[in-house]
Amino acid sequence: MKLQIALDTLTLEESMALLDETKDYVDVIEVGTPFIIEEGMRPVRELKKRYPNLEVLADTKIMDAGELEADYAFRAGADIVTVLGASHDETVLGALKAAKKHGGKIMIDMIAVKDLATRTKELDAMGVDLICVHTAFDVQSTQKGPLDELKLVNTLVKHAKSAVAGGVKLATIDDIVREGAEVIVVGGAISNASERANMAKEMKGHMH
Amino acid sequence: MKLQIALDTLTLEESMALLDETKDYVDVIEVGTPFIIEEGMRPVRELKKRYPNLEVLADTKIMDAGELEADYAFRAGADIVTVLGASHDETVLGALKAAKKHGGKIMIDMIAVKDLATRTKELDAMGVDLICVHTAFDVQSTQKGPLDELKLVNTLVKHAKSAVAGGVKLATIDDIVREGAEVIVVGGAISNASERANMAKEMKGHMH
Repeated sequence: MKLQIALDTLTLEESMALLDETKDYVDVIEVGTPFIIEEGMRPVRELKKRYPNLEVLADTKIMDAGELEADYAFRAGADIVTVLGASHDETVLGALKAAKKHGGKIMIDMIAVKDLATRTKELDAMGVDLICVHTAFDVQSTQKGPLDELKLVNTLVKHAKSAVAGGVKLATIDDIVREGAEVIVVGGAISNASERANMAKEMKGHMH
Repeated sequence: MKLQIALDTLTLEESMALLDETKDYVDVIEVGTPFIIEEGMRPVRELKKRYPNLEVLADTKIMDAGELEADYAFRAGADIVTVLGASHDETVLGALKAAKKHGGKIMIDMIAVKDLATRTKELDAMGVDLICVHTAFDVQSTQKGPLDELKLVNTLVKHAKSAVAGGVKLATIDDIVREGAEVIVVGGAISNASERANMAKEMKGHMH
């Protein structure tokens, strides 16, 4: 079970300060979508160089040109690249081709996928590495968390592993751990904590 | 009717060389998704500075954090920012909030939207500026072009204007012009042409 820390709105310098504090409890560094929009692949390159023992995920949320865009991210040093579950099959398959070439992994972000069960089975059959249920930031105030979706995905996957993202915090992590997931993504619960290293350590302590 | 040139796989320097050749025939400079993944907002900033009389579109394909991510792109100088039609309503509304603040526009990319008619009506009612039918790069070899989708959108929109993207070339532009669209997006047909200025001039000449 891995703890993935999402870096969305911090600068590269602020991200490094956060990671220097928390790196002993973190398994995957996520260069978040807003960070990529602002900086491109620079944080992927720099963070992989500085933390070579941690995995780096580029949250590219690819929707088209799967092979090309995934290739950009893997070449920059990403170990894991995200593709949207809402994209065409061809896009997923293109990204998988790039992943194979680089020895990397593809995580599918299931955000806003309408028929979660059907799409999960299709993606699992395509051979994706990780399927991430994800309550969008924009609906976290009105929708319940991703636990029910995680349960559904866990019953359906034969090959892929599951991941979970979207508002995960100390109060909700035990239910997720009990249900089981390969990767748990945490953002603000750590980066906005008053004692960030302690929060990362405590959350990692709840995982097994 | 505007000609939008998509810059996807060129470097910033190559993009400027292309634009210096073609700028008299181009209305909108698109900083494409692969370009953003590689470089972030730098090309948006630099191209807006160098071509202040042209509109700049940031093809961010936003799927979440609509207000935050659109704000990043508008602050970098984008006049138009793209959001995925497949995203949650809240994400579209967030991006529209950022657009209003900056006096910018939101284009919705309808790539891989399953129920085009229903979603078009919903997005039109939300007040988006442009709805772009888009045949994904990854399916251009197997699916027909976006003309039928453009026709459908044109019959449904009351407020939004239509745009069209995905493999548009000289052989297909007349049908699109006849059908009508506010923005026609052209990528490889110009950037891979042996005489790029001539091709841009000719395509623009077919528009009215």
